[in-house]
Order: sequence, then C-alpha cells, then structure tokens
Amino acid sequence: MHTFEVVILGASGGPDAGATQCFLVRPAGWQGLESVCVDGGAGTSQIARMIASGQCKRQVESFYANDYESVEHFLDKDAYVDAGLPLSLCEVLAPARSTAQRAFRVYQAIRSYYVTHAHLDHIAAMVLDTPLIFGTEQPCSKTICGLPFTTQAIQQNIFNDAVWPNLLQGGGGLLRLDTLRSGIPTTCQAFEKVEVTPFPVNHGMGASERHEVYSTVYLFRDKTTGNCILICGDVEPDGDKEPLLAQVWSHIAANVPLDKLKAIIIECSSTMATKELYGHLGPRNLVEELTHLQGLYGPHALGHMHVIITHVKSICSYRDPRLVILEEVRKEASRAGLHGIIFSVAVRGYTFHL
Amino acid sequence: MHTFEVVILGASGGPDAGATQCFLVRPAGWQGLESVCVDGGAGTSQIARMIASGQCKRQVESFYANDYESVEHFLDKDAYVDAGLPLSLCEVLAPARSTAQRAFRVYQAIRSYYVTHAHLDHIAAMVLDTPLIFGTEQPCSKTICGLPFTTQAIQQNIFNDAVWPNLLQGGGGLLRLDTLRSGIPTTCQAFEKVEVTPFPVNHGMGASERHEVYSTVYLFRDKTTGNCILICGDVEPDGDKEPLLAQVWSHIAANVPLDKLKAIIIECSSTMATKELYGHLGPRNLVEELTHLQGLYGPHALGHMHVIITHVKSICSYRDPRLVILEEVRKEASRAGLHGIIFSVAVRGYTFHL
Repeated sequence: MHTFEVVILGASGGPDAGATQCFLVRPAGWQGLESVCVDGGAGTSQIARMIASGQCKRQVESFYANDYESVEHFLDKDAYVDAGLPLSLCEVLAPARSTAQRAFRVYQAIRSYYVTHAHLDHIAAMVLDTPLIFGTEQPCSKTICGLPFTTQAIQQNIFNDAVWPNLLQGGGGLLRLDTLRSGIPTTCQAFEKVEVTPFPVNHGMGASERHEVYSTVYLFRDKTTGNCILICGDVEPDGDKEPLLAQVWSHIAANVPLDKLKAIIIECSSTMATKELYGHLGPRNLVEELTHLQGLYGPHALGHMHVIITHVKSICSYRDPRLVILEEVRKEASRAGLHGIIFSVAVRGYTFHL
Repeated sequence: MHTFEVVILGASGGPDAGATQCFLVRPAGWQGLESVCVDGGAGTSQIARMIASGQCKRQVESFYANDYESVEHFLDKDAYVDAGLPLSLCEVLAPARSTAQRAFRVYQAIRSYYVTHAHLDHIAAMVLDTPLIFGTEQPCSKTICGLPFTTQAIQQNIFNDAVWPNLLQGGGGLLRLDTLRSGIPTTCQAFEKVEVTPFPVNHGMGASERHEVYSTVYLFRDKTTGNCILICGDVEPDGDKEPLLAQVWSHIAANVPLDKLKAIIIECSSTMATKELYGHLGPRNLVEELTHLQGLYGPHALGHMHVIITHVKSICSYRDPRLVILEEVRKEASRAGLHGIIFSVAVRGYTFHL
C-alpha cells in the first residue's frame, strides 16, 4: 500500500524554464481533485501535456545522446511509477471537454504551494499561473506557504506590479501568503490527515555580497499511518555553517521510525566532474548525507527507502547529466555500504507512488 | 527578398511558463549564429525542441478542441513561415553532436535581449538561462537592454540573490544592463546594419496601487534597405492617458515609407467576449490602432504588410483562443475597410520570414 502520490510537473535544476522543480502531492488514491505543490517551477502547461493524447508515454525528453530516452533508464526497477497523472485524478476530470479545461480544473484544486525558497526556478510558473485564479466562473483561493525568508522575498520582489501584478493586495483575498515556523508542523489545508513540517537548510552564498542564502525541506506525514516523505528543494552540505541539514536528519531519526520513512526527494544538481557546486549537492555529498542519516538510525540499513534525485542542471555535454548522476550516486552508495536504497531520477510527466 | 527572420520561441500571453513571449531576431539569411531577442519568456529548452528530431513539424500544441492543430489554421496563406530554426542557423550548428549542445550554441550567440517590460512572462526564461553564460569553456557575454523602468525593475527585483543570484555584480561583467533612451536608435550589438529604436507605451495600472504601468515597442530597421519591422510587447490603447501609442504611429508614418514597413508583431491578449482587458488589446482595439496608422499614411492601404498576433492568453474554454482571435481580427479588419493585411498568429517553434 502506498501513502503518497507525487506527480513530477518539473524537476530540472535549470535552465528549462517552465519545467523546473514542482511536485504535486496527494494522499495515494485520493478521490478528488485536491492537491498541494512543493515549489512552483512548472504549472498548468505541464499538467496539460500530461493529459494530452499522443504523448510518448514511456519516453523522456532528453536532448543529449538521444533526443528521447526510455523512462526505464531513469528509474529503479522497484520504483512504482506511472506515466501521466494519477488514475484517481483522471477519473474525476473525465467530464471536462478539452485538455485545457481539464488542466485548469487540476490547477484550480491546488490549495497550497509549499515553497522551498524564492529563486525564480522554484516559483516562476506558480506566479505566471495566478491570473487563472480569477479567470473562471468559480474563483479558487490559493495559499503560498514558506519560511519567513521565502514569503518576504516573494512579497517584496514579485507581487509588486513591476514584476507581476500585486495580486496579494489587489486580488480580493484569493491569493494569500502564509509564513510558516521552522520545525512546527501544520495540517495541510487540502488534506486533514496530512501534516507538513518545514526546516531551513543552507543554500550557498549570495553572488554579489557574501551573505547566507537559505532553502527549505518539507517533511510530509500521514497522520493515520505515520508514513512520511521528505521533499527537499536546493540544499548544500552544512560544511562550516550552522548545522541545519544535520538537524533535519536528527529530527527525522528521532521522530520517524525507519520503516515509516518512505522516500526522500532530494537534489543532486551536478555530476562529480563539477568543481564548484554553488550551494548544491553532488553525488558524493548526497551519499555522505544518506550515510549520516543511516548512522543515526543505528545498525539498520536504509533499505527499501526511495531516494529520488531532483534538480539536475542541464549542461553542455553529450550524455544526459541525469543518467550520469544516477550512475554516480549508485556507485558511491555501493562504495559507502549503503545497500537496498531504491534510487531513481524524478522525471517530468510521471507519477511516483510512495 | 526578406529582410528579417523572426523565430518564435514563445508567444503565449500566459500562463504557459517557459513558452511566453520571446522572439529571436536575425537579418534574413545571416551566415552565423548571432541573434538578438525581443523579450525572454522562453529560452534554451524551446530552442532544443525546435532542433530535436521527431517533432510534429506542421502541428501546433493547442490543448483545446484538438490537442494539436495544423499550423495552417494559424497562418495567412501569404505568410512565409518555416517549422524550426532558420536553415542558415541549422547549417552552422551541424557539427555539434547533441541537441543540447546545439541549443547551447544558439544561446551563447544571443548578444542582447530587448526587453519590453519586467513582467515575469517576458523575462523568466532569460533569467533562468543566465547560468549558461558561465557554463561552457567559452564564456559569452550578454546585454539586457530596456527603457529605464525595465532595467531598474530587473536590477532591483530579480538579480538580488533573493530571487536570482546577482550575476550583474557577481558575474565578472559578462552579464550587463543597458538602459536605452526613448526614441533614440542604437545599432544592434550583433548586427552592424540593424538599428533598434525603443518607444514607451501604456500597459494598464498596478493591481494594488493605481499607478501607471508601462511597456515598450521596438522598431527594427535594416540600414541597407530601410526595411522595418515593429515588435511590440504588451500594450493597451492610450484612452485618456498620455498618447504614447499614438506617438509611435506618428513616428512610423513620418519616418518609415509605407512600402518599407514589412511587419507589425503586436499583442491581442483576449477575445472580444472578454470585458476587462487589464492593460492589453482586444481584436477591436487592434483594428482601431491599425486603422489609425492607415489614416496617417493618407489614402494608401496597409496592404501586403504582415500583422502577427502575439500574447494571446490561455483561458478555460473549448476553442483555442488564438484561432478565435484571428477570426475576430480578420472580421473586424474587413468591417473597418482594412484590406490586404496579412494576419497570422505567432506560433511557437516556427520562423517567420519578413
């Protein structure tokens, strides 16, 4: 039995405008349209593409060694992944006539966005989609949730009429910001049985001034079963900085029984050949973090847990960097004695059942 | 003989993140990779899609009555339009091995972005693509050009480390802003023989405070032949405001001989059923503006000039609003006695020869 459905609307670490990180999350088999998103780098047009007929359902846009790659290359054989939207969602959508109408219905039912940080690749499509809140006979309200550094940056820099119409003040209250508190769980607006806890993590330094940049990881917990998934945005190893990621692992090891930790969706932006990570993880860092988490759980292995790699950056190369990174992570994990973890890449247009 | 090639990387009026307005402009048949862009709502991933094999070359993603529509429905039979990138560009790209490598080469050779205004649907992909400036062995420099209200908004709200790394200050001078002056022509960085003149236009009011919002139209002129195309971003009728659009038409009628005005690429965001335009044009407004321009040219008709409609907003409907608008514009033009204008819709993935 699965607990969560995670629809990958976008998972690129850039550029790939319109296809950067956005995960649509629902309880498994939920009999309704409701959802929440983690980040908003992709939106309605990706939803429409998942609904449209004639899509190559087992092919992934690659544009490297081959323009299209079989989806199997990106997945562990034990991952349970479907092309397109979850069946439960498709059934509710059936009466709508056009793909656009179906996509807008899915959009309307997104209740909240849990934003990891305000960098444009995590919010652009969410912002561009906002006129649709007002564009139909049944206006739908939405909440943008985040830690203070996120909601403040969005309010100041985006919804200010210069970069985007200020729909926070001029939108009749249909679009709201909700500033979350670090480490404090709140119940999902859309799903009474799901609670979400945000934790800040380090994400490099500013490019112009040497100040810290932060991001967020979100722990989703099903209150009925106690099953959890951790969804990360951009993150770097703590290094000499405040041990924020270490605190996340400690919280998880102390509060989530090992068999209840179903999946970690986490970035791995660059291949091992990349020297400068600019506030991100490479394959070696990722495996070090997982090794640290395994250490906290004691002698137990992290077997049967899914680790889904997101936010791989597109680079000027011949081989698809996502496939290079997946191979490198699996090799590093094996070398580090991490056995049984189910490693996959988050591929746009597919639904992971976790 | 054509004078300009305009590649439609994106032409949506939103949401459609990653496929909003971005036109790649080159002199016709230019024997090199160089280009400039008007706006930056789409970028490298759209370039890659145009290069990739297996694309449905005469089909347009619609997602309305049909998921895909034949491109002929969007074009006048006298429009000279090719699927994909211009042939001259493809020839130069041939040696690169993968589609990604080819797309990055095209990106590297974009010298300037002429931005109409700082709303996110006109800049998001341009911003997301910027790490690629530094990502290859041969760093390439780029200039973001705009009138003061545009460059100031981009500097303050986007490249500030909170929304995007401040690559204007921390990018070693490879990314620059160039603030243009209204009505003053400057020579294109990429093409010595092309000059570009920006004019401010009205674009509605702020959503929260009742202040004016502005946008820009760019007049491209080939100095050798005197041939011109006008490329607009968002624009509204002047109404009771400062007569900015009227001044553009006056400038054109006074300075561009009728037979040298080859094309106007101009927005028409919503169908005639839409009541509130929020700073945009509807079909009736567009035809009124063209009628005004025809009046300035005296008794001559605007025949044989291309008018290419951009920035149509996606809405929750059954018929594709682009096709509805094209039909409405043609009808209104005929009613207003505008004969011989070649009306088309800007379709993503196609190149117009003008």
